[in-house]
Amino acid sequence: MKVLFLIMDGLGDLPNQVLDKKTPLEFAKAHYFKKLAKDGETGLMTTIDYGVVPGSDTAHLALFGYDPKEWYLGRGVYEALGAGIELREGDLALRANVATFKNGKILDRRAGRNGFGVKELFKEINGLEIDGVKIIAKHTVEHRGVIVLRGKDLSKEIVGNDPHKIGKIKDFEIKKGLKGKEKEKALFTIDVLRKLIETVNKKWENNSINKEREKKGLKKVNYLLLRGPGLLSKKPLSFEKKWGLKAACIAGGALYKGVAKFLGFNIYDVPGATGDTHTNLENKVKYAIEARENFVFLHIKATDSLGHDGKALEKARFIEKVDNVLKKFEIHKEFDLIFVSGDHSTPCVKREHSSDPVPLLFYGVNTRKDLGNFTETEAALGTYRVKALDILPIILDKLELAKKYGA
Amino acid sequence: MKVLFLIMDGLGDLPNQVLDKKTPLEFAKAHYFKKLAKDGETGLMTTIDYGVVPGSDTAHLALFGYDPKEWYLGRGVYEALGAGIELREGDLALRANVATFKNGKILDRRAGRNGFGVKELFKEINGLEIDGVKIIAKHTVEHRGVIVLRGKDLSKEIVGNDPHKIGKIKDFEIKKGLKGKEKEKALFTIDVLRKLIETVNKKWENNSINKEREKKGLKKVNYLLLRGPGLLSKKPLSFEKKWGLKAACIAGGALYKGVAKFLGFNIYDVPGATGDTHTNLENKVKYAIEARENFVFLHIKATDSLGHDGKALEKARFIEKVDNVLKKFEIHKEFDLIFVSGDHSTPCVKREHSSDPVPLLFYGVNTRKDLGNFTETEAALGTYRVKALDILPIILDKLELAKKYGA
Repeated sequence: MKVLFLIMDGLGDLPNQVLDKKTPLEFAKAHYFKKLAKDGETGLMTTIDYGVVPGSDTAHLALFGYDPKEWYLGRGVYEALGAGIELREGDLALRANVATFKNGKILDRRAGRNGFGVKELFKEINGLEIDGVKIIAKHTVEHRGVIVLRGKDLSKEIVGNDPHKIGKIKDFEIKKGLKGKEKEKALFTIDVLRKLIETVNKKWENNSINKEREKKGLKKVNYLLLRGPGLLSKKPLSFEKKWGLKAACIAGGALYKGVAKFLGFNIYDVPGATGDTHTNLENKVKYAIEARENFVFLHIKATDSLGHDGKALEKARFIEKVDNVLKKFEIHKEFDLIFVSGDHSTPCVKREHSSDPVPLLFYGVNTRKDLGNFTETEAALGTYRVKALDILPIILDKLELAKKYGA
Repeated sequence: MKVLFLIMDGLGDLPNQVLDKKTPLEFAKAHYFKKLAKDGETGLMTTIDYGVVPGSDTAHLALFGYDPKEWYLGRGVYEALGAGIELREGDLALRANVATFKNGKILDRRAGRNGFGVKELFKEINGLEIDGVKIIAKHTVEHRGVIVLRGKDLSKEIVGNDPHKIGKIKDFEIKKGLKGKEKEKALFTIDVLRKLIETVNKKWENNSINKEREKKGLKKVNYLLLRGPGLLSKKPLSFEKKWGLKAACIAGGALYKGVAKFLGFNIYDVPGATGDTHTNLENKVKYAIEARENFVFLHIKATDSLGHDGKALEKARFIEKVDNVLKKFEIHKEFDLIFVSGDHSTPCVKREHSSDPVPLLFYGVNTRKDLGNFTETEAALGTYRVKALDILPIILDKLELAKKYGA
């Protein structure tokens, strides 16, 4: 038995003026999705809970059947794992941006979004040791990277130094209300981080990379902005042990790969899987079909990004593109069970995540043919009103792997 | 942003013979509600839980996002606050009826439902002190009032002296299974209450008010029936602090004002807001529109009372009346978001509250245009299947005030 678990990030939406008051999914000519829905089951999923706006990390944990209340360890953990860092228990990981700094001020939080030489700059600080804490630094894409602190007595009860706007630099802080040992650990952690920032600034300021950047007319990279602290404080039971399914991850974005890695998925690096609208959808679907695992998580990011950018028509067109590729490969013949949904809504009118329910569909073994369709409003006519945590147990029963409760 | 939170008490119903087997809401020509529903979202709300019959107090606490398991302190608390008594922590409050008593028997539990002179009679006992406990007595309307005991070591683990039928008087009791200090406190409390009843009887028996009542052919007021003990054992975080919205209450009934007062709402006293079918709906809606708070709770009681009286046609007609007034004031142009529902069902065939789900509608910012309508059965085609506790988080996200959980 082989399951396709297809998540179009931020799929759900709200009515949009540019689409005649339809949502992108309602507006899209997504005939293939609608065919699957007509021959299968539909419903609405409230990812975490009513009114709770999910992050993509908490949402995916829940979709894979891991309660984020227990397993959300902070964004940095999933970013670092997704970047390919082999985290150990006790490691503190933070998402990093390189920035342009001058006279106590951040001039650009992303150093012009240009990644030239940034890989080398991260390498220069990788392996540093500060007060017994080892620094692991890894560049990912453009101005982005990950910083991991490896040592004793680290705490994630801190707030990073990213001011989230240009202007005056911001110091690290410890979270309010900490006491005793926890407070000591947090103070120690921000002390190490302050020293790291100072070192980074010195090492990068007059670096030859910056001279080359200057020649190219690029902004200087001489500061590090850190956020999303996460501590690998414990490790979960693997997805395979928990659900009895070998899992594969086909995703462009580091965060999704990281969540999957955290749960022990096999991560495929698909050529051309970029996590944006230019991603090579055909390659991703091919890899999904060819994967030998029996649970294939296929993640598509651009629906969310287009929601954040408020591009409703483009979101509709991108859904059509996904629909076409899936149709071309006749995925309904390749998998025994198909689940399609989003991790949350990202309404174009809000340009942010929202708690609005997301439509879902099941197609394949042991499914009914219900009255719903695969849109935000018509899915309400279908079988399900569920939370994300309900999905894996439903899949298990459809695969006839669920245990009977009672006799 | 301004929200109208409209609750028609006991709105939900069951099919009724006199309405061609329709419910009052299905039968009513409530075109305006249906227009809002068509352009917004609908659903069904199970107030507390499946099969749990809500009281109006517990239902409203839940609707405002306060779990009644934690915040239902007993009816008396909300009655007393609604009557305008400034309760202090530790106060024990009870709902009071004045009654007609003779030779150990209650002849009329409501002294003929006539409030003549009752205000003065309450004043006569207000301020009494019994065993170090101060008595606060306040008349509200007709035969109704509130008694508050202020002192140390009071307990709400008691049963009142209202026999709930005419005939032999009933003594106060302590609840079963009490032990130690809690039992002592309950015994002390009913001792004070017994002495209060004795004093009341003596003070009222030959009072000049009763002579005047006799002349008018009214029943004697010489007894006090107490029920619904509530102890202000703790104070909640205010609605404004909890949800970040300044709240206004526009209601006729004391209980609703009391719940709102408990949570720190600004209470408007609207001329003509009587809490019955003759209430001045236009004034209430005007006040709602003019209120400066950004969360306006507008409560309409008569739907519930007509349910209790089994008057299905009148209930339908009253819903039409509300619909007409809202239409006249074009409230959809006055608020950014409108939520309409009931606090529970009060089916005319049952003449009591029931746990049957209540239809709901959302109209305004960040709402979809779903397939449901604003009736008990058609709301099932809509987006939501929720509990009352889910409503405020949903509203917050629609107002774009919800915090993201994760990244």
